Amino acid sequence: MEVKKYIEQNRDRFVEELFELLRIPSVSAQSAHKGDMVRAAEWLRDALLKSGADKAEVMPTAGNPVVYAEKILEQSYPTVLVYGHYDVMPEDPVDEWLTEPFEPVIKDGRIWGRGADDDKGQLYMHAKAFETLVATGQLRCNVKFMLEGEEEIGSQSLYKWCEDHKELVRADIILVSDTSLIAWDTPSITCGLRGLCYMQVEVTGPDRDLHSGLFGGAVANPANVLAGMISSLIDENGHITIPGFYDDVRELSEAEREALNKAPFDVENYKKLIDIPAVQGEKGYTTMERTGVRPSLDVNGIWGGYIDEGTKTIIPSKASAKISMRLVPHQDYRKIAELFEKHFRSIAPESVRVEVKALHGGQPYVSPTDLPAYHAAEKAMEETFGKKPLPFYSGGSIPIISGFESILGIKSILMGFGLDRDAIHSPNESYGLENFYRGIETITLFYKYFAETGK
Amino acid sequence: MEVKKYIEQNRDRFVEELFELLRIPSVSAQSAHKGDMVRAAEWLRDALLKSGADKAEVMPTAGNPVVYAEKILEQSYPTVLVYGHYDVMPEDPVDEWLTEPFEPVIKDGRIWGRGADDDKGQLYMHAKAFETLVATGQLRCNVKFMLEGEEEIGSQSLYKWCEDHKELVRADIILVSDTSLIAWDTPSITCGLRGLCYMQVEVTGPDRDLHSGLFGGAVANPANVLAGMISSLIDENGHITIPGFYDDVRELSEAEREALNKAPFDVENYKKLIDIPAVQGEKGYTTMERTGVRPSLDVNGIWGGYIDEGTKTIIPSKASAKISMRLVPHQDYRKIAELFEKHFRSIAPESVRVEVKALHGGQPYVSPTDLPAYHAAEKAMEETFGKKPLPFYSGGSIPIISGFESILGIKSILMGFGLDRDAIHSPNESYGLENFYRGIETITLFYKYFAETGK
Repeated sequence: MEVKKYIEQNRDRFVEELFELLRIPSVSAQSAHKGDMVRAAEWLRDALLKSGADKAEVMPTAGNPVVYAEKILEQSYPTVLVYGHYDVMPEDPVDEWLTEPFEPVIKDGRIWGRGADDDKGQLYMHAKAFETLVATGQLRCNVKFMLEGEEEIGSQSLYKWCEDHKELVRADIILVSDTSLIAWDTPSITCGLRGLCYMQVEVTGPDRDLHSGLFGGAVANPANVLAGMISSLIDENGHITIPGFYDDVRELSEAEREALNKAPFDVENYKKLIDIPAVQGEKGYTTMERTGVRPSLDVNGIWGGYIDEGTKTIIPSKASAKISMRLVPHQDYRKIAELFEKHFRSIAPESVRVEVKALHGGQPYVSPTDLPAYHAAEKAMEETFGKKPLPFYSGGSIPIISGFESILGIKSILMGFGLDRDAIHSPNESYGLENFYRGIETITLFYKYFAETGK
Repeated sequence: MEVKKYIEQNRDRFVEELFELLRIPSVSAQSAHKGDMVRAAEWLRDALLKSGADKAEVMPTAGNPVVYAEKILEQSYPTVLVYGHYDVMPEDPVDEWLTEPFEPVIKDGRIWGRGADDDKGQLYMHAKAFETLVATGQLRCNVKFMLEGEEEIGSQSLYKWCEDHKELVRADIILVSDTSLIAWDTPSITCGLRGLCYMQVEVTGPDRDLHSGLFGGAVANPANVLAGMISSLIDENGHITIPGFYDDVRELSEAEREALNKAPFDVENYKKLIDIPAVQGEKGYTTMERTGVRPSLDVNGIWGGYIDEGTKTIIPSKASAKISMRLVPHQDYRKIAELFEKHFRSIAPESVRVEVKALHGGQPYVSPTDLPAYHAAEKAMEETFGKKPLPFYSGGSIPIISGFESILGIKSILMGFGLDRDAIHSPNESYGLENFYRGIETITLFYKYFAETGK
């Protein structure tokens, strides 16, 4: 049977299966979901066996388990290692969801629910593309799956697991769908990912909340102090002020900048998409450059004092923030974490005490566009989208990708099918059915072309 | 029977009664406690009747009820109007309490629990001083009680209630115990209170939380922006930067400053008491001046983005803060609220939207030291403390006090018996038994001396 026909005949079942996976609230950031992580892993093991894997297992780690599966056909075939993650972001703020985050529904041709795109929806395309090729007898590659449950919290266990299983996962290329297209009519393959350095800081003043009347004006307020410290981390030109922060940043040549800015980008549409009055960023760079090739610093969360209904007249004892930085080649997140901590301590006034913790990090990644696998991906997408995909430098991070290169020595192809509108990491995450099905078809074509030209 | 003897014989019962009141969680800031407000008011009505009032009633308002009670003996006697409040601060952060906030206990000679000092403990001294004078046949004043349930949230209903009941509460002086002594061996009468202007601000960027990788660096982050805006409200000399903020502040003369700084103050003890490495405040002023006669600006709470366990890589859609300012004569909180809002809007970058709300406010207050009632308070305290009390300019606010003067035309005597260590508004609020009993005795003496010299 033909691949397209098989997908067509099984389309409803594919989505029903995905819904089972989406219903498992596998939130890696919250320890209460420990059991759900195992449930999701076991569910995927069974699903991969049913899809045609010769073997599939849930392999324990110090954290959440890794699902490994494989189908080895011929020693001479090229081997593709599929990577994906079954953990999802927390659903909060939960009251902004229009549907239940872990009860997926289809509406307006889209799947709504946490993980619909990132990454359950995208990784499940791989399971179903694999099933399709096995069922139609057209698989000409060896396939391995490596699915982890800690991508959203830094992949710590997978680094170790890779060290321990280099032989098991040996492959010619790693194939990943955990990124987005520039637009539905502008297909793209992600060739660059920013690194990440995620910190948490706490500023402590008095040993308890104080009456802001009796003490206000005479005692440093940790919330005011923290605001000032955060504010000073970025100057009026949008530059990060941490000494040494830019030392290892590779400045692009004029030609590279010109090429990068050729991708279609409409700032008015961009503003409308996320409903902002104006863009803002580092002076002298375009929006594409600011997210693609320049580092950034963002407060991801801030809290301190009385945050409930009404008023409470206190000087809070503590104020805290989660602050993360996106890094670009050749910044090293470990060095950046050290520079951040040193600088943050140095700018604290003597009236407070400061704690700084590094929560997680990952290195930036650049993928070359002259690999056989890149060409296979390019051909596959050209066939399904009717347009040659552009190489794209994404602002996001998948820290483990650079880890794969350094530990396993294998390059990755980031062929994702998401769109900005999918609202990953936000309330009301969704994924287009069209994206899901076209993704499956494109992946089958990737295997076809990689079998022809690969290795 | 003698006053001292009566107090001695009934001391345990007095505290047992107070415990009943402390067990009612009358938190005015949280609407879930609506029923507890009424319970507390009814309890006080009954307690005042049992203590000797001719009549006592719970009078409804648009908010929490006012408890009014009176005992009118002779037209020719001076009339004292006792003011206090039965509402308390929220107990949060609840996990920092060493005992249950609403299950009072006695330990180390102190009463522990929310409201032990502020203001249930202090107002109940008045009920028991009144009982003592009635029971021993020594009351020579007419006494009225006016107890409200919204002091911690701005006393809105009491302003209206006073407008409507001017005749009912007519009196020669208002007597209040809702302040602290400089120290147990440095008794004081509070002659100045700062005003309060309490605002809430919200900064909105994108219409939802965004992925901080895909958008970081190109979109204004409301938490970073809010931090910058807050930071800019106070300059490096500790001056508040809102244009016009200091226009109405009366600068003290050198002689006044010298007098104010004569009160004993040990900065090392102060730092130790609240466990801070250093004091911090407006340049050119002492700690006593910074809290007593200079205005201040404090973040009382700040929140935005992901504040839970672990990491979440988002640009939050919104960030908010509660910011309050303490005001000094002759600043007007309504004018300050306007100046704040105008300034806060003006410093917002065009990349965000800003909302500003005034939550509540109150005018500063200064009490003259040449009133007959002041002298009566002075004599009473001198007798129980063995030392003449100092006039004290407190940093705190009791907004309704200046309201009493403008609406009712009656001055207030702020004879409070609290101490800094009582941790009002904080976890582990407490009140010394010694303060409670000496307060009762001092109040009976106030009535005695005011009857002799008053009106």
